[in-house]
Amino acid sequence: VTSHGRIEVLPVTGLPEFTTGDVLGIAICRAARIAEGDVVAISQKVVSKVEGRLRRLEDVDPRDEARRFAVELDRDPRQIELILAESAAILRAERGTLITRTRHGFVCANAGIDGSNMPGPGVVALLPEDPDASARRIRAEIRERTGRKVGVIVTDSFGRAWRVGQSEVAIGCAGLTPLDDWRGRTDAAGRPLAATLIAIADQAAAASDLARDKTSGTPVSIVRGLSHHVTADDGPGAAAIPRPESEDLFL
Amino acid sequence: VTSHGRIEVLPVTGLPEFTTGDVLGIAICRAARIAEGDVVAISQKVVSKVEGRLRRLEDVDPRDEARRFAVELDRDPRQIELILAESAAILRAERGTLITRTRHGFVCANAGIDGSNMPGPGVVALLPEDPDASARRIRAEIRERTGRKVGVIVTDSFGRAWRVGQSEVAIGCAGLTPLDDWRGRTDAAGRPLAATLIAIADQAAAASDLARDKTSGTPVSIVRGLSHHVTADDGPGAAAIPRPESEDLFL
Repeated sequence: VTSHGRIEVLPVTGLPEFTTGDVLGIAICRAARIAEGDVVAISQKVVSKVEGRLRRLEDVDPRDEARRFAVELDRDPRQIELILAESAAILRAERGTLITRTRHGFVCANAGIDGSNMPGPGVVALLPEDPDASARRIRAEIRERTGRKVGVIVTDSFGRAWRVGQSEVAIGCAGLTPLDDWRGRTDAAGRPLAATLIAIADQAAAASDLARDKTSGTPVSIVRGLSHHVTADDGPGAAAIPRPESEDLFL
Repeated sequence: VTSHGRIEVLPVTGLPEFTTGDVLGIAICRAARIAEGDVVAISQKVVSKVEGRLRRLEDVDPRDEARRFAVELDRDPRQIELILAESAAILRAERGTLITRTRHGFVCANAGIDGSNMPGPGVVALLPEDPDASARRIRAEIRERTGRKVGVIVTDSFGRAWRVGQSEVAIGCAGLTPLDDWRGRTDAAGRPLAATLIAIADQAAAASDLARDKTSGTPVSIVRGLSHHVTADDGPGAAAIPRPESEDLFL
């Protein structure tokens, strides 16, 4: 297998609406023909749904801190409460935006919580409890049904520092090298490479989003052509991606 | 044209080594069959080469500030001089890393300057002077030769705040919507969408990188399937992507 070549991104159509307890891996295998070495990219929203990570705002009792932020940011205190409960640290609370580090270590707006494509008003989805575990489970489901070795990424749309717009990134990953380490390798002339740790899982997430339709959902795409990054074991997962706090210059 | 569907990323092989004055658009049309609506993704390195944006370190005379940073960061003062000359502001200078805002407004390490895949040792490539203008020029070259309307992005590998690894982003863009604006649109149930400004050009850049080989270069890929984002006019370019300083929470 070469380290480069043609890539295809195929949206998976015809998936049902998902609800708590559904087995995503089986549904994906029913809707799509999965090939050995495919990377299956799944929007966190449907993973959260099948894992019962939905919350009704009417059931949420905001702490005092959440009420204070809600006033400051002109937001619903119950949403703020959920964000605080899912966060390990608050980075910025300005102009209506709450940027935190989630318990998983991801820095994003609103701890990844949002209310679009939910089964009812006043219902929001939290990120999966452990998106790497979700990816491993779905990988095993696909393996069991097809006998094929695939990579699985759980993806979400994150804003970025310094650049406007959201890009899809990997928040969970199994069977795919999340970061391709080129440190110590050199160019054709033997000089060090500038890019040395390639964010494969995040780039695959971004690619997967290009084939999606935000309105209808299209929560699953297949990224084909990355089998050289698909591994026999589950690997370190997206837990390898957050920069350690001690090394981060922008916390 | 639908707003989603199958995407292909095709590496362009058989390109020559480029040098100052080469016409990239013609070389790309010789090496690849370009289709209407394709997005042609070009690594900044070859754009810098044809535009004569290479510098010999032996020709660089570092200012005092560059010498001070060089000692502090244990770096070559001539490289630091080039970085300072290409930057509008210094954001961080720590642990060997100099993160600045370039004159174009991009936040990245070393003002995007690096020495890999260069024609000789002690030679480095600066980013193109105006990567949007580069993209427009190459787009016109392809248009003239093929009669086809394409999008062009000039891409570079940038590190990210909070996440380790580099991802390819767009630093120049022509004929492609850099940001797909979904603000005000709603999900199937009429609720606001969480992701409202989709970083199409950056996601296309990330996708393009998956088909590349860092060692051999493979500096050009074609992203096929985004014709619904390819525009008749050149559009705002990647200049639309840097977050305005006044709105950035992480400068």
